[in-house]
Amino acid sequence: MVRVAVVGATGYAGVEAVRLLARHPEVSLVAVTSDSYAGRPISEVYPHLRGWVDLVLEAYDADRLAEAAEVVFLALPAGLSTECAPALRERGRKVIDLGGDFRIPGNLYREWYKKDPPPARWQEEAVYGLTEWAREAVAGADFVSNPGCYPTATLLGLVPAVRAGVVDPGSLVIDAKSGVTGAGRGLSLGSHFSEVYENFKAYKVGVHQHTPEIEYHLGVFGGREARVSFTAHLVPMNRGILVTAYGNLMPEWRNAATEDVVQLYREVYAGAPFVRVRPAGEWPQTKEVRGTNLCDIGLAVEGRTGRLIVVSVIDNLVKGAAGQAVQNLNVMMGWPEDAGLAAVPLYP
Amino acid sequence: MVRVAVVGATGYAGVEAVRLLARHPEVSLVAVTSDSYAGRPISEVYPHLRGWVDLVLEAYDADRLAEAAEVVFLALPAGLSTECAPALRERGRKVIDLGGDFRIPGNLYREWYKKDPPPARWQEEAVYGLTEWAREAVAGADFVSNPGCYPTATLLGLVPAVRAGVVDPGSLVIDAKSGVTGAGRGLSLGSHFSEVYENFKAYKVGVHQHTPEIEYHLGVFGGREARVSFTAHLVPMNRGILVTAYGNLMPEWRNAATEDVVQLYREVYAGAPFVRVRPAGEWPQTKEVRGTNLCDIGLAVEGRTGRLIVVSVIDNLVKGAAGQAVQNLNVMMGWPEDAGLAAVPLYP
Amino acid sequence: MVRVAVVGATGYAGVEAVRLLARHPEVSLVAVTSDSYAGRPISEVYPHLRGWVDLVLEAYDADRLAEAAEVVFLALPAGLSTECAPALRERGRKVIDLGGDFRIPGNLYREWYKKDPPPARWQEEAVYGLTEWAREAVAGADFVSNPGCYPTATLLGLVPAVRAGVVDPGSLVIDAKSGVTGAGRGLSLGSHFSEVYENFKAYKVGVHQHTPEIEYHLGVFGGREARVSFTAHLVPMNRGILVTAYGNLMPEWRNAATEDVVQLYREVYAGAPFVRVRPAGEWPQTKEVRGTNLCDIGLAVEGRTGRLIVVSVIDNLVKGAAGQAVQNLNVMMGWPEDAGLAAVPLYP
Amino acid sequence: MVRVAVVGATGYAGVEAVRLLARHPEVSLVAVTSDSYAGRPISEVYPHLRGWVDLVLEAYDADRLAEAAEVVFLALPAGLSTECAPALRERGRKVIDLGGDFRIPGNLYREWYKKDPPPARWQEEAVYGLTEWAREAVAGADFVSNPGCYPTATLLGLVPAVRAGVVDPGSLVIDAKSGVTGAGRGLSLGSHFSEVYENFKAYKVGVHQHTPEIEYHLGVFGGREARVSFTAHLVPMNRGILVTAYGNLMPEWRNAATEDVVQLYREVYAGAPFVRVRPAGEWPQTKEVRGTNLCDIGLAVEGRTGRLIVVSVIDNLVKGAAGQAVQNLNVMMGWPEDAGLAAVPLYP
Repeated sequence: MVRVAVVGATGYAGVEAVRLLARHPEVSLVAVTSDSYAGRPISEVYPHLRGWVDLVLEAYDADRLAEAAEVVFLALPAGLSTECAPALRERGRKVIDLGGDFRIPGNLYREWYKKDPPPARWQEEAVYGLTEWAREAVAGADFVSNPGCYPTATLLGLVPAVRAGVVDPGSLVIDAKSGVTGAGRGLSLGSHFSEVYENFKAYKVGVHQHTPEIEYHLGVFGGREARVSFTAHLVPMNRGILVTAYGNLMPEWRNAATEDVVQLYREVYAGAPFVRVRPAGEWPQTKEVRGTNLCDIGLAVEGRTGRLIVVSVIDNLVKGAAGQAVQNLNVMMGWPEDAGLAAVPLYP
Repeated sequence: MVRVAVVGATGYAGVEAVRLLARHPEVSLVAVTSDSYAGRPISEVYPHLRGWVDLVLEAYDADRLAEAAEVVFLALPAGLSTECAPALRERGRKVIDLGGDFRIPGNLYREWYKKDPPPARWQEEAVYGLTEWAREAVAGADFVSNPGCYPTATLLGLVPAVRAGVVDPGSLVIDAKSGVTGAGRGLSLGSHFSEVYENFKAYKVGVHQHTPEIEYHLGVFGGREARVSFTAHLVPMNRGILVTAYGNLMPEWRNAATEDVVQLYREVYAGAPFVRVRPAGEWPQTKEVRGTNLCDIGLAVEGRTGRLIVVSVIDNLVKGAAGQAVQNLNVMMGWPEDAGLAAVPLYP
Repeated sequence: MVRVAVVGATGYAGVEAVRLLARHPEVSLVAVTSDSYAGRPISEVYPHLRGWVDLVLEAYDADRLAEAAEVVFLALPAGLSTECAPALRERGRKVIDLGGDFRIPGNLYREWYKKDPPPARWQEEAVYGLTEWAREAVAGADFVSNPGCYPTATLLGLVPAVRAGVVDPGSLVIDAKSGVTGAGRGLSLGSHFSEVYENFKAYKVGVHQHTPEIEYHLGVFGGREARVSFTAHLVPMNRGILVTAYGNLMPEWRNAATEDVVQLYREVYAGAPFVRVRPAGEWPQTKEVRGTNLCDIGLAVEGRTGRLIVVSVIDNLVKGAAGQAVQNLNVMMGWPEDAGLAAVPLYP
Repeated sequence: MVRVAVVGATGYAGVEAVRLLARHPEVSLVAVTSDSYAGRPISEVYPHLRGWVDLVLEAYDADRLAEAAEVVFLALPAGLSTECAPALRERGRKVIDLGGDFRIPGNLYREWYKKDPPPARWQEEAVYGLTEWAREAVAGADFVSNPGCYPTATLLGLVPAVRAGVVDPGSLVIDAKSGVTGAGRGLSLGSHFSEVYENFKAYKVGVHQHTPEIEYHLGVFGGREARVSFTAHLVPMNRGILVTAYGNLMPEWRNAATEDVVQLYREVYAGAPFVRVRPAGEWPQTKEVRGTNLCDIGLAVEGRTGRLIVVSVIDNLVKGAAGQAVQNLNVMMGWPEDAGLAAVPLYP
């Protein structure tokens, strides 16, 4: 059993990591930290964990964590991993960071996050863990930077089309919708029940920090420079992201049938246990992947306008956060990729 | 008092018309029809109406309606107005049709609705009642075809930009999201609570019958031929449509500021009592117009991609159906445009 | 036009009062206060009000309010009216207090609210404004203490049965369920969207501060000492309270039919414009009164157990707060009881 | 591996059984039936199952099922098990019936279900599988009648108190609230999204068919004749039942502390892997057991009224249906009671 700790265990991504690690066949969950609730059992803060995980929450302490655990998950607000990740790496621990600090080059980070980026040395070490497109790099990594929720859904949906030259990467419009857990457990009027319920809105239009993450890694994995309009919307529900992406078909694909693109995607994702490419005419729904690490993708060639339309869905807390982190852990350790993640969606 | 009847009064658009007409200062609601519930008081089918409207539902009968009412609202499933509207017009009654039969030319109707279009004579008489863009025509009309819910939100949001040459009308992507009341009161798995709750999905991708209505009337009101990708999504809530539209800026607007476009829209809608153009940086939410005939519009020029982003919201049952129908009635009769419609949104 | 001010206008009860007063035919809304947002237009804090109410929020100032307004609505957290109400009364202004400070005798207040009660002089002046049972007292009052949301639904449902000796007032079980707006706009984990959505819970079991308010006024209006178990529950929705109350039938009513009790209630509420007693076998739903000042009541005599079951529903922000306050204003001023309140429920 | 079939696999209880059995370590799911969808893969009807369960749905055929499976789960509407269960038993197969036909004596069934009860021979064979109170009987059974969802939550919450003489079994008021999945997948206005959303209602007041099931088995397990008022309510969410039960304390328990009752319950449920008795002052929420077979119980002695208040929560599709059925299967087969059921609740 490999000893794993979760830092920031009382946030939603953190507690989801706890849920998954608590039942992982190869893992022993040895420590959970929370600065706000240190000293209390996690099952008092989250009574649903009673009998499952009754560890006492600790304040963050790099030495103590390095002693207790072989691998550390960081589930922290933006800016904090910049300090914690290097401290743990220097103590020789493997790190999987669920935050945004190490996902994009420093100059982009500074521009979009309005914060100082982490030291270049560690930024370079961090492997961007979009598992399906980075298995080999992750397999050899000691430090994985886990992708953001919107980028995960978007990149899994678009990389095959960009890489194969199906769409013009300068023409992409990405209209994304997320459940409210994506905003975390921190109190704000934007997550206040009465404001969100029976409501739908766009937010951070044109300035969302996931925009450069999408563009940058479309470039890395797709092999072409991309420029995207990205708009985030808030859906009055808890879990799930659905991304609707639109791109202009390249001339050689103008007369393609939807089935051709479905076929391409199926080949690309043939060995991926968590990606399901749906047949032409069938569209995925967020509920169909709820509680799991799955990403479902639907496709259409719209001849009338010369566009490809891609719809991809994930559970933002699983494939968009803690689940993909566990998937990366599995790849790093050489375990089966779906260890601890093989779950049937909770429907309805 | 003008005598008004509602045909199809037990559907959601119909019963919303009943709600609005019941309190309209110039209107006497004289008849309500429903084939399924004929013979029962409407307040038995909809107990919230007890004490407000206790009329007995009647089966549809053109002669009886023509006798009872001066104006007839039709709130019927697609295909039925094709027969009812001409019958009532032939009997000399004014008609406001909330359905889709008379909104687009016959050839488009046949192609997208897979039904025979209504007779050309009546199609020509019907005035497309997007009130803000058709006030004069509506003022002189005896027969108004009320716009669809998605087209209302989309056209109010895009016509100013297309008409003024701000965006390329061939580049438009329209990503639309609607609450479930838009699907009506007819039972289907797609409106079954357990399937919709905690779920988000796209539907009718590439084949939604509102697509030609949007393209055609963008052409009419915007003065340029438009070609749009239109995708509808279902939001797990009851009322509200939010449309996010993306268009490539024309060269002369590439360096415009968001404020310039806001200014343009404010001038265009200066006399419109129901359109609120929000200041730059502020984005409308569906809840902010709930229960009212308002349409709120937010705008951004995205310099990075050269696009205009437009977000518009309405209450699909009010401005997207029964409210706009009453607004058209007001214009037809020469009453104040907001008679019976002056309501503060129900928030939260 | 009577000049009215709302103190605490940015809480949910306050902004609902603003919504109702903005359209009241006899009222001019002259001032709105908020300590958190003073200096900003209320329509910036609540954009749904743009064009309807654009008053600038002021900090609370008794002198200024007494100058500006003839009647002041107080919509404040518990404990604050204790100071504000006397200050305004001393300046000769009529006051309608939506808070809990003046609803129950000082000793009960101290016991259940764990706060010092207001001075006896003002407590005695305050008329408990359960309008249907206190019309005369309200008509002559200068200071009305508006009932709590749960007590309103409970008392309207139970007073007739207690008063007529239908049920044993010592046997009452009151199981109450409320939408989340009842918890107000203040941020807390208990109102955080992700915690509430897809969740149902009981709260403050056995210690809810509305318990003594119910018992005390059942005694006053029902004429018999009551002892109740009261349990509050949180429904994952915004507006609406449903109370299910159970009481043992007194011997002389053991063989009564449900219709007999319905008849009794209909007689009792014959002149009440906002109470609808539903026929035997029909049960009210919260949605059927949404957005209105209505209270709907359903009844059943359960012969098998010898109990009366009463279900009553209200919109907690309207009849349970701001609407009943306006109703009391109407009665105080001698206006029609439904002035500014005649609205058809927003359904669905 | 034991071969198991699910009859009625496309209803919500059926598909939940499929979800659990698909991952059960001792089970091989060999057949799924559905009369409406026979001939189609279940993963076409429920795309979330793609890759997990791709069995083709069959029409019900007792011979074929008896050949294919050793154990058959029946998840059918009321009345159908009356025929299917005997047919399968006659063919020597073990049966676990999730429906209501075999839960109560024939005379009660006839009275409350308004249907002919099943033959006495089979009714006598059926063991009522409230596992925690019937482990031994279930262990030796070939035919288990799985309890209803409301009775499961109610009985687990009340049997200890009735059995130990804490409360008067003639005084019980049971106020129950359920998510919408309890109403199944069959279309009806009562489960239509727009009717249920932002709504709360009571239903089947005084006539719910779970009433006699509760009374009868309170008698069996509690050892005293019970008489209950039972009211069901519909919560606008999918999964979860919360029952609030009230009973008058017997004289010898009048002065007990809540902790005393908590202690009693903890002893009673000491060996039960799925029951969590919460400490005094802590109340369970439906979300805290979601997706699992857990039942959480909260307790309070209300000295002021002399009542015991019990709040119990379950996931209606798991412990209230398919999960308890699997638990019974485990006990019947001598497997660990939590085989295939050990899951951390999906939170939030």
